[in-house]
Amino acid sequence: MTNQQLDLDGNLWQSVDRTSLMPLDEKARDIALELYELVFKLPIISPHGHVDPKMLLENKRFESVADLFIYHNHYVTRLLHADGVDLASVRAPEKTATASDIAQHAKNAWSIFASRWQLFAGTASGYWFVRELRDVFEIDIHFNEETAEAIRLEIESRLDTEEFLPRNLFSRFNIELLATTDSPADNLSAHEELNKALVSGRVAPTFRPDAFINPATSGWAKRVSELTTKTSSPLSHQGLVEALAIRRKYFIDHGAFSIDIGAEEAFTTTLPDQEAEKLFKLALKGKISKEQARSYLGNMISEMIRLSCEDGLVVTLHVGVSRNHSSETFRKFGPDSGHDIPVRAEFTNNLKPVLEKYGLNPNLNLILFALDETTWSREIAPLAGFYPSVYAGAPWWFFDAPLAARRFREATVETAGFYRGSGFIDDTRAFLSIPARHDMARRVDSAFLAELVVKGQISLAQARKIAVDLVTIIPKRAFKL
Amino acid sequence: MTNQQLDLDGNLWQSVDRTSLMPLDEKARDIALELYELVFKLPIISPHGHVDPKMLLENKRFESVADLFIYHNHYVTRLLHADGVDLASVRAPEKTATASDIAQHAKNAWSIFASRWQLFAGTASGYWFVRELRDVFEIDIHFNEETAEAIRLEIESRLDTEEFLPRNLFSRFNIELLATTDSPADNLSAHEELNKALVSGRVAPTFRPDAFINPATSGWAKRVSELTTKTSSPLSHQGLVEALAIRRKYFIDHGAFSIDIGAEEAFTTTLPDQEAEKLFKLALKGKISKEQARSYLGNMISEMIRLSCEDGLVVTLHVGVSRNHSSETFRKFGPDSGHDIPVRAEFTNNLKPVLEKYGLNPNLNLILFALDETTWSREIAPLAGFYPSVYAGAPWWFFDAPLAARRFREATVETAGFYRGSGFIDDTRAFLSIPARHDMARRVDSAFLAELVVKGQISLAQARKIAVDLVTIIPKRAFKL
Amino acid sequence: MTNQQLDLDGNLWQSVDRTSLMPLDEKARDIALELYELVFKLPIISPHGHVDPKMLLENKRFESVADLFIYHNHYVTRLLHADGVDLASVRAPEKTATASDIAQHAKNAWSIFASRWQLFAGTASGYWFVRELRDVFEIDIHFNEETAEAIRLEIESRLDTEEFLPRNLFSRFNIELLATTDSPADNLSAHEELNKALVSGRVAPTFRPDAFINPATSGWAKRVSELTTKTSSPLSHQGLVEALAIRRKYFIDHGAFSIDIGAEEAFTTTLPDQEAEKLFKLALKGKISKEQARSYLGNMISEMIRLSCEDGLVVTLHVGVSRNHSSETFRKFGPDSGHDIPVRAEFTNNLKPVLEKYGLNPNLNLILFALDETTWSREIAPLAGFYPSVYAGAPWWFFDAPLAARRFREATVETAGFYRGSGFIDDTRAFLSIPARHDMARRVDSAFLAELVVKGQISLAQARKIAVDLVTIIPKRAFKL
Repeated sequence: MTNQQLDLDGNLWQSVDRTSLMPLDEKARDIALELYELVFKLPIISPHGHVDPKMLLENKRFESVADLFIYHNHYVTRLLHADGVDLASVRAPEKTATASDIAQHAKNAWSIFASRWQLFAGTASGYWFVRELRDVFEIDIHFNEETAEAIRLEIESRLDTEEFLPRNLFSRFNIELLATTDSPADNLSAHEELNKALVSGRVAPTFRPDAFINPATSGWAKRVSELTTKTSSPLSHQGLVEALAIRRKYFIDHGAFSIDIGAEEAFTTTLPDQEAEKLFKLALKGKISKEQARSYLGNMISEMIRLSCEDGLVVTLHVGVSRNHSSETFRKFGPDSGHDIPVRAEFTNNLKPVLEKYGLNPNLNLILFALDETTWSREIAPLAGFYPSVYAGAPWWFFDAPLAARRFREATVETAGFYRGSGFIDDTRAFLSIPARHDMARRVDSAFLAELVVKGQISLAQARKIAVDLVTIIPKRAFKL
Repeated sequence: MTNQQLDLDGNLWQSVDRTSLMPLDEKARDIALELYELVFKLPIISPHGHVDPKMLLENKRFESVADLFIYHNHYVTRLLHADGVDLASVRAPEKTATASDIAQHAKNAWSIFASRWQLFAGTASGYWFVRELRDVFEIDIHFNEETAEAIRLEIESRLDTEEFLPRNLFSRFNIELLATTDSPADNLSAHEELNKALVSGRVAPTFRPDAFINPATSGWAKRVSELTTKTSSPLSHQGLVEALAIRRKYFIDHGAFSIDIGAEEAFTTTLPDQEAEKLFKLALKGKISKEQARSYLGNMISEMIRLSCEDGLVVTLHVGVSRNHSSETFRKFGPDSGHDIPVRAEFTNNLKPVLEKYGLNPNLNLILFALDETTWSREIAPLAGFYPSVYAGAPWWFFDAPLAARRFREATVETAGFYRGSGFIDDTRAFLSIPARHDMARRVDSAFLAELVVKGQISLAQARKIAVDLVTIIPKRAFKL
Repeated sequence: MTNQQLDLDGNLWQSVDRTSLMPLDEKARDIALELYELVFKLPIISPHGHVDPKMLLENKRFESVADLFIYHNHYVTRLLHADGVDLASVRAPEKTATASDIAQHAKNAWSIFASRWQLFAGTASGYWFVRELRDVFEIDIHFNEETAEAIRLEIESRLDTEEFLPRNLFSRFNIELLATTDSPADNLSAHEELNKALVSGRVAPTFRPDAFINPATSGWAKRVSELTTKTSSPLSHQGLVEALAIRRKYFIDHGAFSIDIGAEEAFTTTLPDQEAEKLFKLALKGKISKEQARSYLGNMISEMIRLSCEDGLVVTLHVGVSRNHSSETFRKFGPDSGHDIPVRAEFTNNLKPVLEKYGLNPNLNLILFALDETTWSREIAPLAGFYPSVYAGAPWWFFDAPLAARRFREATVETAGFYRGSGFIDDTRAFLSIPARHDMARRVDSAFLAELVVKGQISLAQARKIAVDLVTIIPKRAFKL
């Protein structure tokens, strides 16, 4: 590190907000700040998320503040909706809208958000928003109904500058790696192009096979038929597994390192081939029962994990949410419109079949995520504390928030330590919130480590090492980077 | 506010106990005290509870300290029972007892309580009791076996004074609204009379239909037959629904704003009319199976919610407790004798049928309460953070306590903020504990908000507004006051 | 207490580590230290654990540091295994190994442990280890890869001294009572001999009938047949109950005060005798189904509790763990090799049958333990807060750790107070960790009590009494000592 960089770092550190999320106790706070100083500007590794690679490839000016902060942010629109706002008024306007309608819609959405800003006090979404204003746009005044319009104009004028084009922000955010989420059928040439265009860092695709392995998803038969055609595989269960294996290879060739599975439950099973073929045929005909679809999916999760033992793709398993709880809202606004509601999760029994087969396989990394925090101490930490293949996924979605992140550490560290976790993942499509989210995790971990030091449970040297490892070697190992 | 009031307030504030439940950290404590000062004397809104309106109407001297603090307080008697005390000795004496027996029984119960006072250290019940001694009776010495008799005599002598008659305490407690809980068959003239007699504030009835909608409750057939006769409705499922609708109207005419449903689980379903009629007939004959009774109840909960979309009564749904766990104790002492034991609760799937139908109805407010705190972050906050009809009920019963109230905020605020909650409810029949309970909630919230301020998550201005809103507009909106 | 003892105590207190696990806040820390000073050197009561009595009877030099800290410590080996270490290299060497192989194996295991020491940062195991180095071996330098060999040699040289023979440590640890865990078929003469040999304190057996009451355990038929032969009881269900009753009597005669039952769930039932006999016969023939075995076990738990109402043995019920999750590891390394994984637990409904029958029996003490912390506030505290027979078991296994112990208090005290708990149990086979474990509990409780004092919830006098009671009369009452 050159002197010039040191100066820069020193200046950077001076400008950092030192109180945010730090321990109240002065002694602990001083240590936490010492730890945070070590990590606050280390590159961002984002091994799981939902940013659209086209946004980066096209590198166009962001459409509007509403488009940036509201329309696609179901954390924000859901709480506005709960407060009585019509979702249509805070989601993207109709594609047929005129330019002036689009502008008016954006102004209106922003004004709704500002007038109900109190709803977000104490929420994770409110926290990201304030950090983005401050850290990305350097706007330090309080956001509220009175200041909203001035802040909107200020942001819009900044968005006009080259500095705020997506790829320039990508560099400024110091992103070392950003993973997207992609369909097995996707062409990944955009990723290729994008990586050529990036000055620094890398964007990697993630294989997301849900709509192919779960025969209960609508359009499954057509999708499966197209995929097997694409890979010249037979239209059969074995053909589908072969097609997915071929596409996994294609993903790996394009830089993918992980496969992401989202399911309502972690249920796994291993079916005899003829049974799987029978269910496949029923599903093709649309005659598969709910219970049979569950078996088929459970078997396919096992198959995906088996393939990972061969091709090495890390498996992230996200479970425990009832998707699209309100059918009326789903009909009007489609998926990801804010009404996915968590349910109880279970791993110990559900994963036993696959862990019996592959849990000790040195080629497998299986990272577990749940929206049922009771599983953290009861199941995830004990599993990650024994199986070399199992990692405790960072607090996810509703739990990607300061107090929940703290509870995650409290629930898992005493059983599994710091080194059996996945490191932080932001899991977001909100590109501008990425630095704030990683920064939050670094602050929460610095605070937690500092308190362990003050309470005599670890040494300061250990805390310093762990703080750095948590954002470097720990995610790199879990995600095989 | 006049100068005289300001002086009075200033004096009041000087006399307030400033440490109780406040943050340990000095900086956070100072802010918490600033917030608490804004709210500590605001009127009490108690939209759900179990105070007997006759007690206020008759306005008689409280019988004894034992009657006031022990006999009817199942939080207290249950812990004494666990320690080996015969429940009979700490519950109200037989109705046939002589005056001297009654006096002796009261002295004895008080003495048992005092000798086992250590049992209550750290409990919510212990906390209420100390606050009542201090804040209601201005008794500042420590309660223990040695001081118990002197304290008893002191309280008894105060109870002799006019100042301590129920309605004078009602005024002194600064109660703006107090809801009682009443049977659909109840005559509400006592409420009418009482409201005329009150100098300030209002008492409102609450419609509690459990014993009419759950065919598994004993005496259901007789009760239903009487109610339908009373409203001249047919003795049928439709007749029962009609009778309940008529009685709801009667309650509304007498100031009711909510209906309270208590059930072991939140299970809802919607049955075709002929199926509901079939189950009704089976229930009348006492031939309904457990599973059928569950369906009938689940359907009736849906019907109650449907009616709320029409008549606007707020629905509070309290679930997750196995009532009367010890049959022997129930036989001897009846319900509410301290052995209702919580069980797991589930809302996401159980409420889906009614939320599909009525969740987006602008006329519905549905407030969810559970004794399974795992539902707070997993289900209740996400539901309240999307459905405009759903509110997160305050921590209830065993969780109406400082640490649990804090956990409730930690589990819900990051997902749903402060404005999707119900505001505090005391849910108590212990009239004298009402101020202490509301005061506890105000202290816990002041502390929580102060820490968010110190940690840079919200501004002091936001915290000041939220602290006040939590005891004014938030309960008023949730309960449509 | 003589002056000489006071001096000694004063000196002891001076040398105590005053920061470890204490509150961060200065005011609370001062009070916590005042409380901790009252209890830090009180005798250890260990009413439930797994120390091998032969180790104390034979009183031989501990084999090696690896034998002491690693081989038999599944908390340590599991986390090493998760990090990729072959279990064989950190468990005891083959019995056929040569002395030099044994020595090399020990050095190697120690070196593996040292090189992966970071895994244990923040874990309970890491905490015990540091405290053992410091408090048992007076080694104050930080353990790490560089210091490991010097520390190993230092410990080995101390182990050579008489001071470090097991029984001398037993005296030095100030153990008043140590319970072991024993099979109903065990001869208890070792306990008898040992108690004669002990200078101070007592070792008591515990009756652990799992392998006799659960027909799903392998070898059940042979075991049951041998036991009934031993007691000259018929080979029948009634004969087995009789045999167990006879052996319980034998245990009581040898100082036992409790029976320990470990089961995957707390399910209880009461079967008619002929039904139990039928299941017994099926089990003998190896033809019992999983569901029938569950019934038989549930009925036998009821029977064990019934017998306790007669003979007074305290029942500890440990539930909620799926044993031997990895069959391959079990085949290679047997039970207790680190892959017992918790599952959800339930008590309210599962225990209703036995509590209906025996819950109010004054002769019964039933202590409940779970690895599902959601049961603490939801079920265990409410049950222990009503039934005189039910006690809340201390945080166990994965929860025997500072943060989890704190959560246990937060989850139970507001409902059940401090006096309905079991007091601390260490549940360990790691003899040297016993003082550190009890010390941890004392520190955590001192900190918790101190914060209640500062927050105005209990008086300092109450806190002082409770701190002492928690390590004296509370375990003595729960375990009938």
